[in-house]
Amino acid sequence: MSVLPKSVEKVIEQFGKLPGVGPKTAARMAYHYLRSPNKDASNLAKALLEMEEGTQFCVHCFNVADKEVCDLCESPLRDHHQLCIVEEPLDVVAFERSGVFKGVYFVLGGSISPAEGIDAEELRFPQLKKRAKELMAKNGDEIEIIVATNPSLEGEATANYIQDLFSKLVRDGNIKITRLAMGLPTGADLEYADRLTLKRALEGRREI
Amino acid sequence: MSVLPKSVEKVIEQFGKLPGVGPKTAARMAYHYLRSPNKDASNLAKALLEMEEGTQFCVHCFNVADKEVCDLCESPLRDHHQLCIVEEPLDVVAFERSGVFKGVYFVLGGSISPAEGIDAEELRFPQLKKRAKELMAKNGDEIEIIVATNPSLEGEATANYIQDLFSKLVRDGNIKITRLAMGLPTGADLEYADRLTLKRALEGRREI
Repeated sequence: MSVLPKSVEKVIEQFGKLPGVGPKTAARMAYHYLRSPNKDASNLAKALLEMEEGTQFCVHCFNVADKEVCDLCESPLRDHHQLCIVEEPLDVVAFERSGVFKGVYFVLGGSISPAEGIDAEELRFPQLKKRAKELMAKNGDEIEIIVATNPSLEGEATANYIQDLFSKLVRDGNIKITRLAMGLPTGADLEYADRLTLKRALEGRREI
Repeated sequence: MSVLPKSVEKVIEQFGKLPGVGPKTAARMAYHYLRSPNKDASNLAKALLEMEEGTQFCVHCFNVADKEVCDLCESPLRDHHQLCIVEEPLDVVAFERSGVFKGVYFVLGGSISPAEGIDAEELRFPQLKKRAKELMAKNGDEIEIIVATNPSLEGEATANYIQDLFSKLVRDGNIKITRLAMGLPTGADLEYADRLTLKRALEGRREI
């Protein structure tokens, strides 16, 4: 005797595929939609289908876009001398929300993580190299690559890989590679900072 | 200039309606579906639509079902002298998984919670009374109502309400109302038990 209708089990199964969502949370999510009176389930379904059909990766930066070239890559207001490499589309959202960067982006699609079985072949390194060369051709060689992968083990490994990838071009003086500064975040309490953050903050200290 | 395609924003908005899901989690969920290569988004969409179209509430117990009367209420193997009142369909799943109860259920649809603005009118008390009377007629009056609302303030308030609802029938001796025992859960560490749990465990102590 089944307690749950098959259609409910299926929704639970699908939600359970989300990262960090266990069977209990998935069940709660499914039940939310069973209970909600406002057609929330079909609204989500419609939105998902529209998203799946209506989005693609920008051919230049591989950010999610609704056309071949995204607004950011297309814009003449952006500085095409600066290429900011991030892991995920949400990192672009974070930068744009802050308004601190006026260059263009490249979305790698993750970071090198042997623990999760993601090695360099699964990331967009060939496309990155091609994009960097395009920008160099366009700007007469001078570009800066800003490595904005996460300050994690995986992000660091990925940053090292990018450094190697462009080492010849850097030696030839055609390109500059920089990495986001690491240190104490604004508003942090030094007392609670972890060892590595303190180490990085000390290493990166500047004269004032 | 929009960073995210509208269709992605819409999915984030929809996920954000889930209880306990903030805008960041909603964005992560949307991006999971953008990245997943296996048509996960349309699979979830399909499952949601099937669930919305294919489910209804059982006319007897108000559990989620794929037909008018659910398997549990329909089954001649279940004891129709025992009616277990729970808040949510997932509580039925919990009981059935444990295999400890052989009666039938009634799903109230929540608990009385002034804090969340849910009062008695929004729960299925009239339907509960009707169902209890049906079972009494069927079984020649003798039924037991087992109140299995959560051991929370809201669950207790709901249990009290149910007690009042059936007080006349109890006085007339036609019905017995019981409440799940409260006390220490198996495997718990007495040292870490909260005050109320200890109080309840002491109050409910039994001779051995």
